Amino acid sequence: MIEPCDLLIHSVSQLVTCAGPPGPRRGAAMRDVGIIPDGAVAIRGSTIIAVGSSNELRRRFRPAQEIDAGGHAVCPGLIDCHTHIVYAGDRVAEFEQRCAGATYQEIMAAGGGILRTMQLTRAATTTTLVAETLPRLNQMLRFGTTTAEVKTGYGLEQDAELRQLATIELLAAVQPIELVPTFLPAHAIPPEFADRPDAYIDLVVESMLPLAQERYRNSLFAGHHIPLFVDVFCERGAFDVAQSRRVLSAARERGLPRKAHVDEFTELGGLAMALEMEATSVDHLDVTGAAAFPALAASNTIAVLLPLVSINLGITHFAAARQMIDAGVAIALSTDANPGSAPSLSLPLTMAIACRYLRMVPAEALLATTVNAAHAIGLGGRIGALMPGMQADLIILAEADYRWLMYELGGTPIAQVIKRGQIVWKS
Amino acid sequence: MIEPCDLLIHSVSQLVTCAGPPGPRRGAAMRDVGIIPDGAVAIRGSTIIAVGSSNELRRRFRPAQEIDAGGHAVCPGLIDCHTHIVYAGDRVAEFEQRCAGATYQEIMAAGGGILRTMQLTRAATTTTLVAETLPRLNQMLRFGTTTAEVKTGYGLEQDAELRQLATIELLAAVQPIELVPTFLPAHAIPPEFADRPDAYIDLVVESMLPLAQERYRNSLFAGHHIPLFVDVFCERGAFDVAQSRRVLSAARERGLPRKAHVDEFTELGGLAMALEMEATSVDHLDVTGAAAFPALAASNTIAVLLPLVSINLGITHFAAARQMIDAGVAIALSTDANPGSAPSLSLPLTMAIACRYLRMVPAEALLATTVNAAHAIGLGGRIGALMPGMQADLIILAEADYRWLMYELGGTPIAQVIKRGQIVWKS
Ligand SMILES: [Zn+2]
Ligand SMILES: [Zn+2]
Repeated sequence: MIEPCDLLIHSVSQLVTCAGPPGPRRGAAMRDVGIIPDGAVAIRGSTIIAVGSSNELRRRFRPAQEIDAGGHAVCPGLIDCHTHIVYAGDRVAEFEQRCAGATYQEIMAAGGGILRTMQLTRAATTTTLVAETLPRLNQMLRFGTTTAEVKTGYGLEQDAELRQLATIELLAAVQPIELVPTFLPAHAIPPEFADRPDAYIDLVVESMLPLAQERYRNSLFAGHHIPLFVDVFCERGAFDVAQSRRVLSAARERGLPRKAHVDEFTELGGLAMALEMEATSVDHLDVTGAAAFPALAASNTIAVLLPLVSINLGITHFAAARQMIDAGVAIALSTDANPGSAPSLSLPLTMAIACRYLRMVPAEALLATTVNAAHAIGLGGRIGALMPGMQADLIILAEADYRWLMYELGGTPIAQVIKRGQIVWKS
Repeated sequence: MIEPCDLLIHSVSQLVTCAGPPGPRRGAAMRDVGIIPDGAVAIRGSTIIAVGSSNELRRRFRPAQEIDAGGHAVCPGLIDCHTHIVYAGDRVAEFEQRCAGATYQEIMAAGGGILRTMQLTRAATTTTLVAETLPRLNQMLRFGTTTAEVKTGYGLEQDAELRQLATIELLAAVQPIELVPTFLPAHAIPPEFADRPDAYIDLVVESMLPLAQERYRNSLFAGHHIPLFVDVFCERGAFDVAQSRRVLSAARERGLPRKAHVDEFTELGGLAMALEMEATSVDHLDVTGAAAFPALAASNTIAVLLPLVSINLGITHFAAARQMIDAGVAIALSTDANPGSAPSLSLPLTMAIACRYLRMVPAEALLATTVNAAHAIGLGGRIGALMPGMQADLIILAEADYRWLMYELGGTPIAQVIKRGQIVWKS
């Protein structure tokens, strides 16, 4: 019997399903991306209803629309699970100072650094923030990103943080990339609280978090079953473990899922605290020692690695991805897109660097930006793999082999992007 | 008096002229890119006839066509002075083996490496080579490249090498990027000559070089005053200094300009030999010791650095660009685009990496892909700067500050590309 469907994509050299059992992918299972040769995928509405061989699905379905992939590969839409893309201005002048050898302290003294972005972001209206961020999202779409987590954290005061949150919701409504909001008022110590960070944490916990949650409840995110995460920057010079714990603990009491920036420069103990708080993800882990891997591997927490930060800083130290994977840690990769430490919107470049400097193989890199990245933002059952019942988010490459995504440095071998069953970008 | 012109580009936030005295840029002069704020450029035919302020040039010229750059920056078209883009197939499977830790020897044993590309290239017709290379050139155009040097070297036998040369000429005729051919039959020791490389050098010098030169004389290149370079790979496992000298010496006797791949892995002495042969450029220099810098600085030879090779190999050693510049060496940067050691077509990414790992500042990186890259391919007087009398090759960025080219990792902030006065690409 021939069934109707809305869209049939066939003649796919490699249908890279990333299919597997529920949950994040770990260990040797990170090497299996589940390729169907000469594959096809059938879509009804915004949902995948079948994957299989081109022959089988062309016999089985009568599609309203079809795409001949022309012997190119198809992968799940990429998921950027850690970004800071809502901000005003850029940091290009500071970039030049860093090239010339200026230290972070000198840049701060010259008015640069995160506080520069904070000032510009505080001064920006929601409209300005939408207008400045939209081109970044358009760029990300061309790089194959179909879902992105987006953090606040450049307001560092109540109104501006809530304005960033409102901006994320507006952006979710006006462009095709699905956005997952993360509230990060504890991204840095605001200048007004330089000598009393605990007082800022009081404000975060007692006022900002409740307000953010209230706004969230009436947002389109809540309506679409997209969570609101709460995140904190646990680092020397930012928030210590006790302060970070207060933020995540308050989030937990409110039933909000949690994330934490830990171990970027210093192994403070934030990782153990975040695991105790059952964080959905722990992010950075550049200096995490091997002693921490077993607990991380035994948890449900995803380790989000951000290798473009090392590249951007021109340093030769990278997170110990290989050892983490071998220890059973579920790894995701993300751009960390932000104007200071990672001015990049490209998950293909992130994967390319992970294959070179994190000693990951292409399959691991892809699973780290699809299945595991979905779990890092609480959407593991819905996106990240091409399986019946999953949301129809996928990219058609311009090459026959999916490994071109990682092989090419700085390229974008992507021909079409499909989000919720709709073609949203074509090269 | 109002003069006519064909094209006036105005309202340029930064007209980055890269203007300066004749010759390559060295030392502190590499920090001056000659920015005209609120600039404009007037073009007649394929030539720049004036640069200046928007106000001045709008009063002075009546253009047939005008472009309002909308407050974005304009730079000279980028020049990729070292590429190997004419080949068949790819090396994506070998890339995966390398990610998994395979050595170069294991890859060779598994049928990978340069000899794999040689086999596929030997088996390809000129039509196939044109069809496979054309998308790469289209991609390069989007990255802002308006001129590219292109090497043979995957034939490694007379007919296939001449076919690669013919392919370069065909490609020059069918797409907008201006191409400069380099004959590199001594790129690797062909398998037929594994035990007798000197016999291959005999063939190169006595037969291949004369034939290549004869073809060149009747090519469109000669008609357009574009040189034919002769290049050699001087390295352990490739050709030794004596063999390399024979190739360059034969080129010199024939009046052909010279290049050499030297000091990529081993400081064999190829650099001194190439300087003695008055090479136009010496390329790689990853392991060149500081003792060689004064002679290089005192020569007319350009040092072409290729930092994406280090990135692609996942190594943390880079050429000593900072010390070279400070010693007065004229540096150029290039992608080294090739399927094995540098699968990248992006000069913006090359510059971005140079700013991070070669400790160059943005101005130095830009001059290294414009003025100095032009000198590295013998076209220093014609392209690489926006000055009256120079060819009208330029890029209009999508940002107000030219440093976005280096600041962003993996992006392409380019809105329009103009070659010989014609708009050849628009985002
Ligand atoms: Zn972050
Ligand atoms: Zn080369």
